[in-house]
Amino acid sequence: MTPTANGNERPEVLLLGFGGVGVIYSYILQKGGANVTAVCRSNYETVRENGIDIFSDKFGEHRGWRPTRVARSPEEVASISFDYIVCCFKCVPDVKPNSEVMRPFLEMNKRNNPARLPMVVLIQNGVDIEEEAHQALVQASDPLASCIVSAVSWIAVTLLGQGTRIEHGLMESLTVGLYPSPLDNPVPAPLAESLRTFVTLAENGGGDILATNDIESKRWHKIMWNISWGGVCLMSRRPVQELLQAETMPYTLGVVRGIMLEMIGIVRASGIGEERVSVSLIDQVVGMTMSATRAKIRVRRSPDVFLERHTKSYARPDFKPSILVDLENGRPMELEPIFLNMIRRARRLGVDTPRLDLIAAAAKPIQLELVRKQRGEDHAALILDEEAIYDANPNENFTGCAPTLSS
Amino acid sequence: MTPTANGNERPEVLLLGFGGVGVIYSYILQKGGANVTAVCRSNYETVRENGIDIFSDKFGEHRGWRPTRVARSPEEVASISFDYIVCCFKCVPDVKPNSEVMRPFLEMNKRNNPARLPMVVLIQNGVDIEEEAHQALVQASDPLASCIVSAVSWIAVTLLGQGTRIEHGLMESLTVGLYPSPLDNPVPAPLAESLRTFVTLAENGGGDILATNDIESKRWHKIMWNISWGGVCLMSRRPVQELLQAETMPYTLGVVRGIMLEMIGIVRASGIGEERVSVSLIDQVVGMTMSATRAKIRVRRSPDVFLERHTKSYARPDFKPSILVDLENGRPMELEPIFLNMIRRARRLGVDTPRLDLIAAAAKPIQLELVRKQRGEDHAALILDEEAIYDANPNENFTGCAPTLSS
Repeated sequence: MTPTANGNERPEVLLLGFGGVGVIYSYILQKGGANVTAVCRSNYETVRENGIDIFSDKFGEHRGWRPTRVARSPEEVASISFDYIVCCFKCVPDVKPNSEVMRPFLEMNKRNNPARLPMVVLIQNGVDIEEEAHQALVQASDPLASCIVSAVSWIAVTLLGQGTRIEHGLMESLTVGLYPSPLDNPVPAPLAESLRTFVTLAENGGGDILATNDIESKRWHKIMWNISWGGVCLMSRRPVQELLQAETMPYTLGVVRGIMLEMIGIVRASGIGEERVSVSLIDQVVGMTMSATRAKIRVRRSPDVFLERHTKSYARPDFKPSILVDLENGRPMELEPIFLNMIRRARRLGVDTPRLDLIAAAAKPIQLELVRKQRGEDHAALILDEEAIYDANPNENFTGCAPTLSS
Repeated sequence: MTPTANGNERPEVLLLGFGGVGVIYSYILQKGGANVTAVCRSNYETVRENGIDIFSDKFGEHRGWRPTRVARSPEEVASISFDYIVCCFKCVPDVKPNSEVMRPFLEMNKRNNPARLPMVVLIQNGVDIEEEAHQALVQASDPLASCIVSAVSWIAVTLLGQGTRIEHGLMESLTVGLYPSPLDNPVPAPLAESLRTFVTLAENGGGDILATNDIESKRWHKIMWNISWGGVCLMSRRPVQELLQAETMPYTLGVVRGIMLEMIGIVRASGIGEERVSVSLIDQVVGMTMSATRAKIRVRRSPDVFLERHTKSYARPDFKPSILVDLENGRPMELEPIFLNMIRRARRLGVDTPRLDLIAAAAKPIQLELVRKQRGEDHAALILDEEAIYDANPNENFTGCAPTLSS
């Protein structure tokens, strides 16, 4: 292992966003040989006093587990030089851009150790989320980070007991890659080295981790479920299971596939071919979710041929996508990374996305209220704001079909 | 005036569905010279005892107004021969088909007076709602009604005080026409006569009524708002005003227009040309609603050119389409007449309707719960029904984009 920023054996990790996912990756990295400083917000006091109870089928039971340090502010960690800043907080740039959440910690870190900038690891949902941090922190005239590592995690973990306990099953895998995706280009040696160290930490900690030169493709894979099954759940405000009834599938399945096809259209127009994101993913993602139906699926018009049901993988009847859970709890949703970044790309490339547009149109008024509330603004007054300006120029429209107005 | 079914001066009207719209048309027809028998459900006792309080900008204040008779069952009206059966109840055929709601009254009526069948007038939302009643009541081997009159009403009326009071503004207009639309074909004399009498009753009662040979076109006009602005409101669960903010219009307007364009596609594929349903309706319906925005609408990129705001027509900030009000109150929605009949037609004609499909996919699971509740069924148990069968044959799919399943 190469010398760390502090010159000691154990690399220093600053972990931002100590929710369910944050706790699991704190545990993995610390067990793998890192010192982990977790920045907590609402659960700071209890985690500091009592630690956190981990109940994981994969990682075991650990009552009162503690990261190396718990902190609330940049000042509390002023003496440490960090090797990695791992971001597990929600990506809601309409509340606060990723770079702004990290900036105070990164500035403090640079003051402490200007010669060695840390690697930023984004374990977050969505597509096209990296560029903002890359511009603001890596490509800035006064850079604060050495590079952006984009990471896609498959994990289902639940934070319970007001942030004192997490429950986790068996599924946990993380794919990491440098942003922008190097593809066939060589990665500068120090960055490759630093990424290798991160992968080794996670492996030693028992995590399933994979490094790739094409993290962008992995993000498209991951988001395919979130926008399609997740999008219809969000519009319906219902658990996935309710979309999988014999009486609802004739309505939901076609739409779910249609949303995925819109995404494939965007992917192809972006120059990403079948070898990087295959259209067969549609069947995989549809089939995987459909297998959780309780209904019998008759394949042909013959009355006695049924598709085998994967009875063991029945989803929990109340499972809802996290974006719907956020909506129901009155928290700002990850609308930007999951839906709006995709639509932005579609508009730029001239791809029509009627279903995604409708989800955005329906979710945006809600998001606006949630964001205003978070910012302490008066939503009701802002709805009636007579000075706000809407540009009825087609170019100003976010969705595909613009209004005609005599000019 | 021709002799009525009872041979007396005043035609007999049976009015089913004594909600806001039903009260207004009871008032108009009774004032215009008919005897009105209103069939009440939840508000029977109070209406019978105290009448209903009408507060209408157009028709004035009438406290304790009463229809000629109030009834609950067919038996109570066994001695009357009806000239008109006016249907103002919600059209939710997935709970009960229109014809089934009318049948017991029509059978009793025919027993009483087999020689003269009444005219059925459907004052209901949606498209393609008439055929079911036409088949079951008019074209049946033992017909119970002389014909179906389809009617489109523009009216905003609110039922308050648990069905004891209605509030109504100035807007009230009714367009009526024989189903199927005769267009240039002659209408049989007795039907024409009976329809004329109905129009005269409404006119004498102070209503704005118009007869047309093409009621089908009028239904498409009316539904255009409901499916577009109404559809996005339904998905968003927000009042119209929240779709009209400077920050939400870039998302909502394009989708609203897109939904309308899907409808125009269906209309044209149905053989209904520009002269019957004009595409310019899109601009009218978008513009009419947009004029209720509080935001300034900048037409060009020039910083100082704004569209004039119709400050007087500001909609009430909390106005919601009735389908959303039904959802919020846990009542089955008019999903079939407003959305699903349109999509059925689209599938039959091969028209792609991605936005309407998504609305249907999201609303169907909700509707299923509301209908099951209404029927006294156990929704939670039915979700987990392992015997229900889903036909994964593309022809069985309601929406455009069917699943691929190895067969």
